Amino acid sequence: MAALSLIPNSSPALAQASAAQAAGRTKPSPLAPSEIVAAAPKADWTAIPASDLLVMDLAPDAKGRPRRVVIQLLPPPFSQGWIGNIRKLAGAHWWDGLSINRVQDNYVVQWGDGNAEDKAKAKPLPEGLAVMPESEYTTDDLTVVVPFGKEPIFEGRKHALRNFGNNRDAYAATVGFLDGWPIAYGGGGRLVGSTFETNAWPIHCYGMVGVGRDLPPNTGTGAELYVVIGHAPRHLDRNIALVGRVIEGIEHLSSLPRGTLPLGFYASPEERTGIQSIRLGSEVADLPLYEYLSTESESFAKYADARANRRDDFFIRPAGGADICNIPVPVRRAQ
Amino acid sequence: MAALSLIPNSSPALAQASAAQAAGRTKPSPLAPSEIVAAAPKADWTAIPASDLLVMDLAPDAKGRPRRVVIQLLPPPFSQGWIGNIRKLAGAHWWDGLSINRVQDNYVVQWGDGNAEDKAKAKPLPEGLAVMPESEYTTDDLTVVVPFGKEPIFEGRKHALRNFGNNRDAYAATVGFLDGWPIAYGGGGRLVGSTFETNAWPIHCYGMVGVGRDLPPNTGTGAELYVVIGHAPRHLDRNIALVGRVIEGIEHLSSLPRGTLPLGFYASPEERTGIQSIRLGSEVADLPLYEYLSTESESFAKYADARANRRDDFFIRPAGGADICNIPVPVRRAQ
Repeated sequence: MAALSLIPNSSPALAQASAAQAAGRTKPSPLAPSEIVAAAPKADWTAIPASDLLVMDLAPDAKGRPRRVVIQLLPPPFSQGWIGNIRKLAGAHWWDGLSINRVQDNYVVQWGDGNAEDKAKAKPLPEGLAVMPESEYTTDDLTVVVPFGKEPIFEGRKHALRNFGNNRDAYAATVGFLDGWPIAYGGGGRLVGSTFETNAWPIHCYGMVGVGRDLPPNTGTGAELYVVIGHAPRHLDRNIALVGRVIEGIEHLSSLPRGTLPLGFYASPEERTGIQSIRLGSEVADLPLYEYLSTESESFAKYADARANRRDDFFIRPAGGADICNIPVPVRRAQ
Repeated sequence: MAALSLIPNSSPALAQASAAQAAGRTKPSPLAPSEIVAAAPKADWTAIPASDLLVMDLAPDAKGRPRRVVIQLLPPPFSQGWIGNIRKLAGAHWWDGLSINRVQDNYVVQWGDGNAEDKAKAKPLPEGLAVMPESEYTTDDLTVVVPFGKEPIFEGRKHALRNFGNNRDAYAATVGFLDGWPIAYGGGGRLVGSTFETNAWPIHCYGMVGVGRDLPPNTGTGAELYVVIGHAPRHLDRNIALVGRVIEGIEHLSSLPRGTLPLGFYASPEERTGIQSIRLGSEVADLPLYEYLSTESESFAKYADARANRRDDFFIRPAGGADICNIPVPVRRAQ
């Protein structure tokens, strides 16, 4: 009889142990990734300042239930010009009363001013927004130095993720985690002495938030934002500014009805989902404290290795590697 | 002003041309992947027999609109034991009246008998279902021969996808397309003369359909099926049987409310979505003819290259490579 269980991503250790016993095994099972995360000591978790959060409250759903989406903004040195604009827009309460206008299956959910292309109806933007250059899609502020045959170094900080399998990536020389974020590097560079210098950029994984824009050289202001709700569209890396990621409530976006016009835009304004408000976390009362599993920690190294090599009871063949977007950085409400 | 346009995946050639004109450019833009597909000659499309389709009709949505999901079954030599079971289950109308019981964000939607784990209430399975061995998660029937320094060959058939960038993959020696499907190979093998023989397996991309199972050595019957609705969970490759892919209507699954219990199961039976019927395509009246872009065609080679190197107006940096799950095989209603 085929049972309902499929993949024990989140199965408690107890269920694992009893399953092992039922199978007549006495050796304890290797921990699943979720169990490694659950066992991580408090010191391995890093608090996220409320001022680095963006809190979006959508109109309640059909049953009147609230829908809150919490976004963590990218830290320096990535995309700070656009993020400055986003802080201004949130501070001005600019998004309040606007809407989600586009939901394209296996791609993105996008929000902003549904009338942006109609000059007579478009909502004026706050003054003083920065116009960012395309060169800021990657960063040179964080030079990656790759000594021959050694681990890459970011400005003296050791690259956090040393090994999650074979590290092969179709879009960059290699990929890893820095300060809690998935990043890539190696799109060209220069040899300096015996080391190779190159630059770095954030990665379009599931849940990442980016800045909608027009055709180049337009780079967008940050007023129009999208979230990835499908397979990582990595071809957008280095072509659009990424500014953050959803850390709670993404299901309120990913389960929205898909738009039926090209690119997933809704055919009528009535189909749009209203945005009650978007605020910086520091403006929101009673917001929980969130924390992420430090990507420099030993717990994260074990977690990433377990994601790349599943050895828990459900699996018969560890993969030997993992796509970086298959190693989501654990984020939780502080305990 | 940030406009609504984000990524012109599906923008018509006309809009591209006028955008190029507006930007003062006279050279025609390189075609977007969707434009290459639209321009592919009829001869490059391969019809899918109705007998290889599975048609799932869900209960109508809240507004009374029908919800149909069309699945294409994998061709030989992959997973044929499970697919034989699925044909029997569909022929017996076994799924009729059952439900979608699990929706886990960025992972899977799963359906079958919600009472499968309660022996008193479970729906009996048809007799004569095959019990498949784990060895069938990969295939030896399709031996991949990789001559040194040359293109891989499948039993005398040329491997279709010659180049979509750098071909790097974190989960397999390499990946490509065979008879319209994404496949991987290279998980061990043996040197025979000057060639390397290994086996092959299908890939868990977005939209792929697999067989839910219990802990090993259980391999599932095919009564419990799931569809990938998030980033490709490639760690499941070679650990579960894949049996097909959704070719139409996936939005009826991917936009369902997420379950709130562990693994995305619904907390109450009332939250489940009912299945009116699942039928083989050959049993369904007035089913359209579907066709896929032959992965052996020159059009597909151009499409794959364009997915790996976006050169259309929106992009400033072609990636130089692509994840195989970012090259979905185009499928359409025959024209």
